[in-house]
Amino acid sequence: MIIVPESRIADLVSSSECLVAVEQVFASMARRSAYNFPVIREAIGHADALYGFKSGFDRESLALGLKSGGFWPGNFDKGLTNHQSTVFLFDADTGRCRAVVGGNLLTALRTAAASAVSIKYLARTDSRVLGMIGAGHQSTFQLRAALDQRPFEKVIGWNIEPAALSRLEAVAAEKGLPFEAVDLDELGAQSDVIVTITSSFAPILKAAQVRPGTHLACMGTDTKGKQEVEAELLAKASVFTDEIAQSITIGEAQHAIGRGLLSAEAIAEIGAVINGTHPGRRSEDEITLFDGTGVGLQDLAVASAAVDAAVARGVAITVDF
Amino acid sequence: MIIVPESRIADLVSSSECLVAVEQVFASMARRSAYNFPVIREAIGHADALYGFKSGFDRESLALGLKSGGFWPGNFDKGLTNHQSTVFLFDADTGRCRAVVGGNLLTALRTAAASAVSIKYLARTDSRVLGMIGAGHQSTFQLRAALDQRPFEKVIGWNIEPAALSRLEAVAAEKGLPFEAVDLDELGAQSDVIVTITSSFAPILKAAQVRPGTHLACMGTDTKGKQEVEAELLAKASVFTDEIAQSITIGEAQHAIGRGLLSAEAIAEIGAVINGTHPGRRSEDEITLFDGTGVGLQDLAVASAAVDAAVARGVAITVDF
Repeated sequence: MIIVPESRIADLVSSSECLVAVEQVFASMARRSAYNFPVIREAIGHADALYGFKSGFDRESLALGLKSGGFWPGNFDKGLTNHQSTVFLFDADTGRCRAVVGGNLLTALRTAAASAVSIKYLARTDSRVLGMIGAGHQSTFQLRAALDQRPFEKVIGWNIEPAALSRLEAVAAEKGLPFEAVDLDELGAQSDVIVTITSSFAPILKAAQVRPGTHLACMGTDTKGKQEVEAELLAKASVFTDEIAQSITIGEAQHAIGRGLLSAEAIAEIGAVINGTHPGRRSEDEITLFDGTGVGLQDLAVASAAVDAAVARGVAITVDF
Repeated sequence: MIIVPESRIADLVSSSECLVAVEQVFASMARRSAYNFPVIREAIGHADALYGFKSGFDRESLALGLKSGGFWPGNFDKGLTNHQSTVFLFDADTGRCRAVVGGNLLTALRTAAASAVSIKYLARTDSRVLGMIGAGHQSTFQLRAALDQRPFEKVIGWNIEPAALSRLEAVAAEKGLPFEAVDLDELGAQSDVIVTITSSFAPILKAAQVRPGTHLACMGTDTKGKQEVEAELLAKASVFTDEIAQSITIGEAQHAIGRGLLSAEAIAEIGAVINGTHPGRRSEDEITLFDGTGVGLQDLAVASAAVDAAVARGVAITVDF
């Protein structure tokens, strides 16, 4: 059994390697070669924790297993991150546990990779201004991965706490790009691509604030009740997602679906665009919107990449199990 | 993170220690301090494998986590057991992975412990003859654990393949007890306690073959469609189980429930008997029947015992994770 501790992940997989892994598994999902098992999510009645599993199997890569962990709100006071997760990979040929992999950084990287994949396939090629809504811990991962996908010339951002925007400014500066804090009207008016990464329970961005031709990646909504953009925006956009079943129940699309503004049949899988069975963006004026809900197969894909890298570089910790 | 490899389990936990762990968690379940999360079970479409998770949380012992693995029918030809499982324990205070524990022997031990607990609490104290139906690999574990619960004087057994009964004879001999191969009429007529441990999909033992005062532990039925005894037997017995939700859907009780011979309300939790909130056996003539379906909390309980033993004896393998 191979162990890849949390502390080793940063050296083993890059943002671009995660993008490749996530892109491949989205494609495999759309080919019906990979599927996610039902999600388990339980309020355990101890430490205010939410605990659960996301799991699946990809018959093409043979990635099998689960990510387990959850949200422990008291962790911060103990010097730990509140989100804790561990990925367990199984040998699809024998059912034996193959690897145990620290899942905290991988979760951030695979979530960033998903919005980056959507930009790669759906944003206009002449996109130059990237708008960020949300400036929490995860936003820096989203921004870093997004900036690789187009020759962006400027980053603009909005956050409920403006002070946190310095995080985004710092990442933009890494790439030599200017950053500007803006209001939501300005963000919509200037952006070619918008990434939302908040934990909002009410729409932040209005449909009228988004101009034709924009690509949006809505990455914050992963639970019933959460919402980042007006449902009317999904009604006028071409909507794509990682997994339709999650999109319509716990994703950003839940609200437009609930109000009858969108049908599940109108939502396309991003994997179909990757595979070329869906054309993706059809015109320069179309608004495209990716509803990123987060699936277990993404976790397995990036964890597998980390294990492969650890083995290839001879730094895997092996335990006779 | 603590690793307890499969090969160490046999030295770390005994049959009687597993009985204590399983007894405690059944009691905790009946106090509503412990509960099992939904079971995931998937035919993955590769290697004819069934893969899944059983998981739960015990607020009293703070055991949190899952058993993952499944059934790989081609393993035997590779020199591996077909049933493969691994238990992952999490720290309930932080959500971090605490231990990875080999789950193959533990699964056998916890299943044996469950029928032994039922004998401890429900069999007549003057039980002297133990009847075994089924003589596969798991039957030896059931027999060994059962023999500790009463001063049995004889073991009798029936199996679809009579040659396999030598397994049971060998275990009886370990305890200096005679063993006799019998037909099902004789088995019912002589036995004070009957343990069924088969993978049958049709009733083996008939209601008319069981005499008053018998205790049965039906341990083989854990899937829709499986069945070991006639539904009429459950109609005339007092029925107990580990978890009522599983008993009526995938346990032995599914058939009596489906035919209207038994109501879910009439089934008692074995934990209630352990806690003293249910009287258990009410008379010497009553037939008691334990429907053992197997729950994730059992796995967590015995895996926790193995980890505690490994730590106490200083033989735990620790990995900085």
